[in-house]
Amino acid sequence: MGADHVRTLTTAVPGVAVTEVYDRDTERATQVAQGAGGSVATSAEDLIGSDQVDAVVIASPDSTHADLAVACIAAGKPALCEKPLAVTAQDALRVVEAEVALGRRLVQVGFMRRYDPGYAHLKATVASGALGEVRVVHNVHRNASSTTSATGPGIVTGSMIHELDTVAWLLDDEVVGIRIESPVRDGLPDPQLATLEMAGGALATVEVFVNAGYGYDVRCEVVGTAGTAALAPAPSVSTRIAGVDGVAVASDFVAHFADAYRIELTAWARAASAGAVDGPTTWDGYRANVVAEAGVAALVGGARQPVLSASRPALYAVGAR
Amino acid sequence: MGADHVRTLTTAVPGVAVTEVYDRDTERATQVAQGAGGSVATSAEDLIGSDQVDAVVIASPDSTHADLAVACIAAGKPALCEKPLAVTAQDALRVVEAEVALGRRLVQVGFMRRYDPGYAHLKATVASGALGEVRVVHNVHRNASSTTSATGPGIVTGSMIHELDTVAWLLDDEVVGIRIESPVRDGLPDPQLATLEMAGGALATVEVFVNAGYGYDVRCEVVGTAGTAALAPAPSVSTRIAGVDGVAVASDFVAHFADAYRIELTAWARAASAGAVDGPTTWDGYRANVVAEAGVAALVGGARQPVLSASRPALYAVGAR
Amino acid sequence: MGADHVRTLTTAVPGVAVTEVYDRDTERATQVAQGAGGSVATSAEDLIGSDQVDAVVIASPDSTHADLAVACIAAGKPALCEKPLAVTAQDALRVVEAEVALGRRLVQVGFMRRYDPGYAHLKATVASGALGEVRVVHNVHRNASSTTSATGPGIVTGSMIHELDTVAWLLDDEVVGIRIESPVRDGLPDPQLATLEMAGGALATVEVFVNAGYGYDVRCEVVGTAGTAALAPAPSVSTRIAGVDGVAVASDFVAHFADAYRIELTAWARAASAGAVDGPTTWDGYRANVVAEAGVAALVGGARQPVLSASRPALYAVGAR
Amino acid sequence: MGADHVRTLTTAVPGVAVTEVYDRDTERATQVAQGAGGSVATSAEDLIGSDQVDAVVIASPDSTHADLAVACIAAGKPALCEKPLAVTAQDALRVVEAEVALGRRLVQVGFMRRYDPGYAHLKATVASGALGEVRVVHNVHRNASSTTSATGPGIVTGSMIHELDTVAWLLDDEVVGIRIESPVRDGLPDPQLATLEMAGGALATVEVFVNAGYGYDVRCEVVGTAGTAALAPAPSVSTRIAGVDGVAVASDFVAHFADAYRIELTAWARAASAGAVDGPTTWDGYRANVVAEAGVAALVGGARQPVLSASRPALYAVGAR
Repeated sequence: MGADHVRTLTTAVPGVAVTEVYDRDTERATQVAQGAGGSVATSAEDLIGSDQVDAVVIASPDSTHADLAVACIAAGKPALCEKPLAVTAQDALRVVEAEVALGRRLVQVGFMRRYDPGYAHLKATVASGALGEVRVVHNVHRNASSTTSATGPGIVTGSMIHELDTVAWLLDDEVVGIRIESPVRDGLPDPQLATLEMAGGALATVEVFVNAGYGYDVRCEVVGTAGTAALAPAPSVSTRIAGVDGVAVASDFVAHFADAYRIELTAWARAASAGAVDGPTTWDGYRANVVAEAGVAALVGGARQPVLSASRPALYAVGAR
Repeated sequence: MGADHVRTLTTAVPGVAVTEVYDRDTERATQVAQGAGGSVATSAEDLIGSDQVDAVVIASPDSTHADLAVACIAAGKPALCEKPLAVTAQDALRVVEAEVALGRRLVQVGFMRRYDPGYAHLKATVASGALGEVRVVHNVHRNASSTTSATGPGIVTGSMIHELDTVAWLLDDEVVGIRIESPVRDGLPDPQLATLEMAGGALATVEVFVNAGYGYDVRCEVVGTAGTAALAPAPSVSTRIAGVDGVAVASDFVAHFADAYRIELTAWARAASAGAVDGPTTWDGYRANVVAEAGVAALVGGARQPVLSASRPALYAVGAR
Repeated sequence: MGADHVRTLTTAVPGVAVTEVYDRDTERATQVAQGAGGSVATSAEDLIGSDQVDAVVIASPDSTHADLAVACIAAGKPALCEKPLAVTAQDALRVVEAEVALGRRLVQVGFMRRYDPGYAHLKATVASGALGEVRVVHNVHRNASSTTSATGPGIVTGSMIHELDTVAWLLDDEVVGIRIESPVRDGLPDPQLATLEMAGGALATVEVFVNAGYGYDVRCEVVGTAGTAALAPAPSVSTRIAGVDGVAVASDFVAHFADAYRIELTAWARAASAGAVDGPTTWDGYRANVVAEAGVAALVGGARQPVLSASRPALYAVGAR
Repeated sequence: MGADHVRTLTTAVPGVAVTEVYDRDTERATQVAQGAGGSVATSAEDLIGSDQVDAVVIASPDSTHADLAVACIAAGKPALCEKPLAVTAQDALRVVEAEVALGRRLVQVGFMRRYDPGYAHLKATVASGALGEVRVVHNVHRNASSTTSATGPGIVTGSMIHELDTVAWLLDDEVVGIRIESPVRDGLPDPQLATLEMAGGALATVEVFVNAGYGYDVRCEVVGTAGTAALAPAPSVSTRIAGVDGVAVASDFVAHFADAYRIELTAWARAASAGAVDGPTTWDGYRANVVAEAGVAALVGGARQPVLSASRPALYAVGAR
């Protein structure tokens, strides 16, 4: 993911230079840094503290996100932190608290779907009122195949977390209850079917299937009292060959969401050049972690789990993107 | 529905003459009978017993279905009984028991989706193994608007009952558990979101929304370990007018499933002319009623309800359509 | 084609019995007759004259169409004659003249696309005025592969003749000029691109490709000053397997237009049972032959050919279907 | 168009600063320059000669393109010249000759469709051989409405010129003959239907309709002996509201091809920063003008016009993008 971000930053984002790169694998870091015209940092901490660095993209292993985000806040530098903000809600809360203590938002969480033209159009359609009152949101999130280290809780925290954020964002609402079931009871619980209860009353269904086989696929339909709207992702060319009229399915999220990543990084870079961030907040990241934890409990225990509410700090008052 | 069936029988089904019509509203019956070249019966019972009648279509109010079906069995005449077979599982069981006592199947239940070319193609795709093992089935069932007399339980027994039958038929499996929720807690619980657990492990989601506003819409996607297949219902013409590239949505189920009704009646008439039925059985109708009753309990109580299993009589052994 | 019509008539058309069958191949005729519960006639003429025959379907080799149609007129029996009505315009005109002499229409030409729900919907859309004034019609007509005996003129007279009729019918207009080119100058000229000039000013393009390889495909888009409308033929199920989101393309016209043939035969049988026909007329068949002859001249000579106009007999006054 | 390019350059293209802006309308120039952080030049010639300017985007009236392109060549500065390269083929040839005299390519013509992901995917599909040998290319190019100053020749030179370039590029081939007709003989000849003959034998149809009413629409299907491939442009969201299942049609080319413009400018800027260009050449621009002139003659005279061939200078040898 880090190498992809560097490639996007250097080839498609105006006003950015990649000056330093860090990776535990020094060879990898060197390769990426050379391609981008930057140098290799000796540690993540050094990179964050470097005079050559105005803003930081965190795309390291999930378990390091929270600490690095806190370090960026301590250094007063805008950061884009890949999702999830942390592995536990408690750790995510530490990042929130660091920003609140500073009194300024410096970390944007990589919920890049908010920058996808399709999702953005979908949110605008909901906001326009054309669908009436939203009652249901249906989500599908499929990968061709998972790594062998995939676990049931990992699917919730690593994959479904996108929908946990997206649905709340689409509806400007909060998840207050979650249930997750799987047709597979022995072995990896995949696919997983979740039902989300929103504070405003709407329900959302989520299918996450990380071994769907045929390719990468993300769908979302918002059902209102006056109509529905759905993502209509379509490859750019259709073919009719050998009895099939078809379009190619993206193989992975990098291809599927290439535009979203480019737009996300462009928006982030623009804000960061003014020393700020204006995308998904650490509070959004924290809330997604809270829902994911309830989801994991629901997956394991089988029963619906309430999602604990929390008081939103003024720093994250609605109105922020 | 009865008048529609008469119209289809007289204009599109070979080898059938509509000889007698009965309706509590004699004026209506007269009108329909005259259009079809038949006469008006003085009662449903007289019609069933008439020498002019070889086979019977039951499209009367739901509460009369079971008694009329039993009367047809008593008269030894093949019947097509509109869904649901009965209002309660107990009543449906009476019809099953009448057939079992006779030792012969005479009543076909009007689960006409099994005759829809799309559903038939979908079932063939599942049966072909092309999708691998089925893990999930997603169903959407929307009407533009309901009558003011609609009730939460009525939506389950009158509308969702289609999916309760369809999913079991598509997968050659049985529903063993059901849960139903609605985003609307005060007033008519609509839409309803159901989760069905199948004996073989698969899960199914069902959204029934009888006041969806925009039109009639039925969708079904079967998700397997090797791929997915979905109904692709499309009107026959697309237009590009005033900034919209669109297709018309059917206004109601009569238009949407016109082909399914015609094929159903054609198949039924062919079998009935040989004194038999070969479509959805009263056992299928009974099982759908059993699942619907569990669904109503789930809707009211909020919790997952088990669906009581029952021993399938030999008369309904698998292998029948 | 004849066997297909017999199968449709016996399984899907009300009010019809197939009483006699004739085919030069007696074995074939016997097989088809037995399946339909009819007997084998000793000649086409005997069949047309038989007391057991009220109406005739002509699906014999193209070169016999005109004579058999004239024989049906002489016998006073309604007939459905497969397209083309004749191989030459002169022969087609003989059929027209026979009807005109009789003063009654008895032969319907098998331009079954007029009964296809898609084309019917398209014509209704044009007629509604929603598209404004029609300026252009684009047609595509592809077969997977042709027989080895296919010829350039044969493609015009046997395949493109559908579009030659369809465009005139859609616009209630006449073709007054035609040009045909092919990218293949040596060997079979396939695909062929035709441009039709209509009396009312509109232009139509036609691509006929009888060796398109991938399957059978028919498309039609009507372009008006206020919008466009197009056939949206879609198989009933879409699948997502192995990286492709696709739908199956029909393999041939029998599958693609099964509904059109059923509806055509049903309408024809209903009219024929009253001793009449109300579908595409012999005049329509004659005009298509006239345009096809101009098309063949255009294909061979390379230049635009005018289509000779002719005075429409009162028997075929507009208003007939 | 110029203001759009400036906006894209400043918000979405890395490594570029807009330093000077010129427009005959000084107020307009000032507004655009201020938004971009640049200054206003006193003339186009001054801008081209300025030390502050390394590369030039020419988006002035068509009649000025050739002279400004020659000026850029004289100044040794890479330029992106909007299509058409010139109003006449003779003027376009002047630009080619200037480059040939210099021995270096410095001007890229704004055939931005080559950068559209859909067209690029289509070309890759053709090049892959998956379609077999290409026989036909169908093109549709529609605008919602034209300015009142639109003329028949202007539609060819200003709009259809895109397809005149695109088809040649898609097939790596040359147009050798062209015919253009219109259903409108009095008043503005719109729509126009062109047939292009390619040197390799393929034919192409082009419908250009600059008053199509419903919106902006561009379609292209390549038909080969083994299958077909078509652009599948789809908006990102589909809605089902009030009986219509639809997607929005783009209102204009700026929205439709926003990605193509961004990618074009990014590629151009990258090459220009090395003092070169690697996109559509002035030779491509010249050839498109030659075909357009033949097209205008065909439109006016009604007959097919040959397209004069010319010897491609070594500077533009195939292999260049």
